[in-house]
Amino acid sequence: MQIKYADRVDSIKPSAIRELLKLTQQPGVISFAGGWPAPESFPIEEMKQVSMKVLEEQGRSALQYSTTEGYPALREFIADRMKKSGIQIEANQILITNGSQQGLDFSGKLFINQGDTIICESPSYVGALNAFRAYMPNFVEIPMDDEGMKIEDLEKALKENPNAKFIYVVPTFQNPTGKTMGIERRKKLVQLASKYMVPILEDNPYGELSFTDEYIPPVKSFDTEGIVIYLGTFSKTFCPGLRIGWVAASSEILRKYVLAKQGADLQTNTLSQMELVRFLELYDFDEHVKKVREIYKKRRDVMLSTMKEEFPYHIKYTYPNGGMFTWVELPQGIDAADVLKKSLEYKVAFVPGSSFYPNGGNENHFRLNYGTMNEELIVEGIKRLGKVLRAL
Amino acid sequence: MQIKYADRVDSIKPSAIRELLKLTQQPGVISFAGGWPAPESFPIEEMKQVSMKVLEEQGRSALQYSTTEGYPALREFIADRMKKSGIQIEANQILITNGSQQGLDFSGKLFINQGDTIICESPSYVGALNAFRAYMPNFVEIPMDDEGMKIEDLEKALKENPNAKFIYVVPTFQNPTGKTMGIERRKKLVQLASKYMVPILEDNPYGELSFTDEYIPPVKSFDTEGIVIYLGTFSKTFCPGLRIGWVAASSEILRKYVLAKQGADLQTNTLSQMELVRFLELYDFDEHVKKVREIYKKRRDVMLSTMKEEFPYHIKYTYPNGGMFTWVELPQGIDAADVLKKSLEYKVAFVPGSSFYPNGGNENHFRLNYGTMNEELIVEGIKRLGKVLRAL
Repeated sequence: MQIKYADRVDSIKPSAIRELLKLTQQPGVISFAGGWPAPESFPIEEMKQVSMKVLEEQGRSALQYSTTEGYPALREFIADRMKKSGIQIEANQILITNGSQQGLDFSGKLFINQGDTIICESPSYVGALNAFRAYMPNFVEIPMDDEGMKIEDLEKALKENPNAKFIYVVPTFQNPTGKTMGIERRKKLVQLASKYMVPILEDNPYGELSFTDEYIPPVKSFDTEGIVIYLGTFSKTFCPGLRIGWVAASSEILRKYVLAKQGADLQTNTLSQMELVRFLELYDFDEHVKKVREIYKKRRDVMLSTMKEEFPYHIKYTYPNGGMFTWVELPQGIDAADVLKKSLEYKVAFVPGSSFYPNGGNENHFRLNYGTMNEELIVEGIKRLGKVLRAL
Repeated sequence: MQIKYADRVDSIKPSAIRELLKLTQQPGVISFAGGWPAPESFPIEEMKQVSMKVLEEQGRSALQYSTTEGYPALREFIADRMKKSGIQIEANQILITNGSQQGLDFSGKLFINQGDTIICESPSYVGALNAFRAYMPNFVEIPMDDEGMKIEDLEKALKENPNAKFIYVVPTFQNPTGKTMGIERRKKLVQLASKYMVPILEDNPYGELSFTDEYIPPVKSFDTEGIVIYLGTFSKTFCPGLRIGWVAASSEILRKYVLAKQGADLQTNTLSQMELVRFLELYDFDEHVKKVREIYKKRRDVMLSTMKEEFPYHIKYTYPNGGMFTWVELPQGIDAADVLKKSLEYKVAFVPGSSFYPNGGNENHFRLNYGTMNEELIVEGIKRLGKVLRAL
């Protein structure tokens, strides 16, 4: 049957990762592929307590419709926490979304006309690229070094692309590279955005998962004009199953996001928002995040030290100071997709890198997630992967 | 600051209802405005039981990411239930969404190029119209009589609009009119859709809330070619706070919806899906729906009999056999928005009708929801409204 879809349907691509995950979820596969958090970090007992309390004391409200903007006490908590990280924001400038992925989709919907330019890091988060693709933009990739996006290249791109609609960055413990943008660059990034009047979309799912005591101010903390749209999430610090993230932006911009949310799904799950608020009231969120951080730090240490022992010396990779990912560079001419095929024979999975480059190429990279598997499996998986790499 | 949004932003309008709800949620207001279900019908004790069990026995999976398509056991349950209503569908042709509103948004995203035509009932559900508007279609409204959309007008519209992308219908206990499309019309609707190769989007949130024993086969039950896309939800039969709805469609079409879901928010809340499944396993859903139905039937009876006593005789309204709404027609020249202003002085709220007409006009209609308020408040509210109407 010949049904006529919208033109944009041809641009909506399957997520390489989500499709791959189906393959890698066979029993026995050691998967460094997805961005799944450590299930050991989930506060299951606490969730039982707060579920009981919410249903007991506020059952009818918890199961009913609620406002599009989100549960007020949750918006308050988020605004307070953002203020502590140096951001000027009020609770009414927060919209609760279904994870930050929904904030990415809304950003595409609100900003992108077909053919507009989106500026992003090279490589960039594939889930964001796929969300934007539905609105048919062009992508201009900005090369990175160890300090993140190269600012001179960014300015060149802004000059050359008057139809640039926003600059998408994951500045802290980036997905997929694990890299963090330096503070001076963050300041310059905001200056350039203001100069060219192109908003920044700061996606910060990993910022709380720092393995050092260094304070890394969010890009939005340097924003005095409301040019930065900030996406946050509880998926990595609490759990992803509840699908709770947020958009923080100037009141003018936020109003557009609220309208997008109305049309998209009316509101985020009421019960889960209320349970999260009860958790935040009854337990110490800082203590909880500290525990999560320790789990990931230990796993980073185990994975990176095993890689040092097992990987051939000429294979390069990043050393992340937070978050969940390290980024591996193979010698030119080797395709990570071929390596994956081999390593799946040894029941080890990862994500080949080229899908993180919106304009393709760079087949010699891949991403490893050290967050999901426990230490024992990390060691075993990296050993097997080392064997595959040494045989190349 | 001059930020450049996408062109479609001008088309994304605030929901008249959601904006109105903010006004009507002041204490003391008797609201017949929103489409909120009766909170007395929510299974709070049962939810406590199933929350405990899910977190106890499957805590890690329940808080983790899960598949985009939805929790398998939930898709199975839905497919089985749809089969019982005469629809040929398999579990892998079901996508779980955040309420059926998300299915409406995806339908716009997947089908509408700017300027395409959407055919709908006149009047139609305003939340759907707003979701579609973000993709900038034209709306062609098909007049209704007591049997729903007039089929001869539909065929005329299909002939005249070769760029029609889908026919949007709420055929059973329609929002806003409470009307139900006759069975012969349903068959003809499917025939016309096949003839002109224009899919039907059947939105059926109220079908389970029938007050009679009459079996009303869904439009999709007459579909042998996969031309009907069906949207369902647990918002009215279970509770809306969990935001669980679904899309059921042919495998080819469903695949597009799954890709839209990936980009939009990855997946629906894992915990809530698992809790719902546990509820469906442990309790008798038919018994539960029967209870919900009885609540609404009683309220329909109370509201309609009070309207008969209190409303001036020349004011017409529909007599719904299910669902949550009756549709009131004032004499020509009277604007329901003015009536609302007056009735808010008496602390009674409803939704003026013109926003249900995508091309405007018809200011002399309004919608009453008898589902949310208890019987006592219904009587009191209708008495006050009768006073306002008699004073016109």
